[in-house]
Amino acid sequence: MSTLTIETTRSGLVESVHAVSVAVVDSEGALVASAGDPQRFTFWRSAAKPFQAMSLVRDGAAERYGFGSRELALACGSHSSEPMHRALAASMLRACGCEEHQLACGPHPPLSQAVADEALRAGVVITPRWSNCSGKHAGMLALARHHGWNTAGYERAGHPVQERALDEVLRWTGEPRDAVRLGVDGCTAVCFALSVRAMATAYARFGTSTEAAARTLREAMLAHPELVAGTGRPCTDVMSAARGAVVAKVGAEGIYCAALPGLGLGVALKVEDGDMRCSPPALLSVLRQVGERRGLGLGGVADLRQHSEPVLRTTRGEPVGALRATGALRFH
Amino acid sequence: MSTLTIETTRSGLVESVHAVSVAVVDSEGALVASAGDPQRFTFWRSAAKPFQAMSLVRDGAAERYGFGSRELALACGSHSSEPMHRALAASMLRACGCEEHQLACGPHPPLSQAVADEALRAGVVITPRWSNCSGKHAGMLALARHHGWNTAGYERAGHPVQERALDEVLRWTGEPRDAVRLGVDGCTAVCFALSVRAMATAYARFGTSTEAAARTLREAMLAHPELVAGTGRPCTDVMSAARGAVVAKVGAEGIYCAALPGLGLGVALKVEDGDMRCSPPALLSVLRQVGERRGLGLGGVADLRQHSEPVLRTTRGEPVGALRATGALRFH
Repeated sequence: MSTLTIETTRSGLVESVHAVSVAVVDSEGALVASAGDPQRFTFWRSAAKPFQAMSLVRDGAAERYGFGSRELALACGSHSSEPMHRALAASMLRACGCEEHQLACGPHPPLSQAVADEALRAGVVITPRWSNCSGKHAGMLALARHHGWNTAGYERAGHPVQERALDEVLRWTGEPRDAVRLGVDGCTAVCFALSVRAMATAYARFGTSTEAAARTLREAMLAHPELVAGTGRPCTDVMSAARGAVVAKVGAEGIYCAALPGLGLGVALKVEDGDMRCSPPALLSVLRQVGERRGLGLGGVADLRQHSEPVLRTTRGEPVGALRATGALRFH
Repeated sequence: MSTLTIETTRSGLVESVHAVSVAVVDSEGALVASAGDPQRFTFWRSAAKPFQAMSLVRDGAAERYGFGSRELALACGSHSSEPMHRALAASMLRACGCEEHQLACGPHPPLSQAVADEALRAGVVITPRWSNCSGKHAGMLALARHHGWNTAGYERAGHPVQERALDEVLRWTGEPRDAVRLGVDGCTAVCFALSVRAMATAYARFGTSTEAAARTLREAMLAHPELVAGTGRPCTDVMSAARGAVVAKVGAEGIYCAALPGLGLGVALKVEDGDMRCSPPALLSVLRQVGERRGLGLGGVADLRQHSEPVLRTTRGEPVGALRATGALRFH
């Protein structure tokens, strides 16, 4: 078994170690490269969002409510609660005749520390549209409205909105129903547990699909990376730097997924312990290794040192160590 | 090899896993129980504080500046920046004729989320006495003053204050000088890398020593657990509940150490990936296993479910999973 590890260093010594499971697959689901356990079964969390948003486009709700590439990027994103994100979520709700109190997602401190600090300083009450998932939830409400389904309970297993999300998860992963388990995500919506390999398969297909809905969502994410995450966040910076070569989406508890349309490959990884500091260096190591092996140019991705080897500092701001990836993928 | 693991669950599935290395030793340094790699070499971080404070008492500085049990508990602690902690750090500085700008520790968001949020809301500027290490640093300044050493650079390797700290680390662990490496801690002071087993040895000795300085510090920590950490924090709650049976001190990056004076044992553990959510459940599992095996009553420690099995919640506050320890120590 090949291993990929993220180490944190301090004063030249390795202080902590994080194991990573990785699957790189083609659109047939064949394993191209791996590390750790590519069959690791865990929750997809927010990296499932493009597939949770698929029915919004396929079923005609996006067109009906005038959702263009900006709204769809937000629906696929885990945003930083910046003003542009909150305003767009609010306008999606208005477009489908819903109000903020109908969002099932709860408020939480913004993923952007700067936005979180500013909100506390300003004494602002953080409401559900601030949730990093408010674009996904607004899209789910729009889908319910479009079909005339009850909007109450749209986030729960068994509601037709979640049945449609599950349909798309099964369709894109190719997994049988009994290989996927349902759970409750941090935002209260259904989340999906499946193998890391199945996640990668869905991304490989998402990156190369000629289906209109998939193309629309993929192009929306690539056109508006700032709406998929936010200022300075890894998804945003990787997609901006890769200039179309990578579609990247993070998930909670150490999940990262990406499509490499130019190679027809999908990537999924899980930091075994769920550390969110480690998933970006792990993704960038995988992208570098696959890019080198397959001769894929990744634009400015190699320059994103703030994400591939983030510096650790003392409380006086002096560098004292870093996160770094070690280990090589096994190519099959 | 025996394993101790902390799992996080979501909707009944294990989502993330954290390996833990543990050493339980007697005051001779003999291994009584272990899990993972008891020889794991890593930084002691803030769990070294009682030994960093030892010379403050032994050399007469504490007596000279009127530091009683409250000041010494703060010097051994990683406090939550609550008003009582900041006021006590400020009074320690005044007592030895120093000012806040002489503290080498940098400001950081308080370890207590409630205190951090309140500070941001109130627009307070967080200064060095808010550092969780300000009691340690005030003690180091007092030691420098007492000896007539230059206070500038007191935090750096080679300064006599740090030489005294190193002396005590070697004396209590029994390690040769070349088995200990120096680094820079988050607060900019010297930190010490050594084996988890050596850390446990120092705690076993600290818990049972009849030396005046050790007794004074141990009794200070037990008398004022609220100054060793803060409201609702694990060190504070464990020491309060155990009624003298446990002296507990957390360190950054997944370190936890404890003395069990009634058994003459010391405990040290490292969560391999450094996760700070996991070290309290790991410590409580080790305490429970050792207590059961050796027939040691631990008072109300078993009731601290908020630390042994913390609940994970959605952004709507609904329970969705928990952290839990699995695996058994190997008793030698």
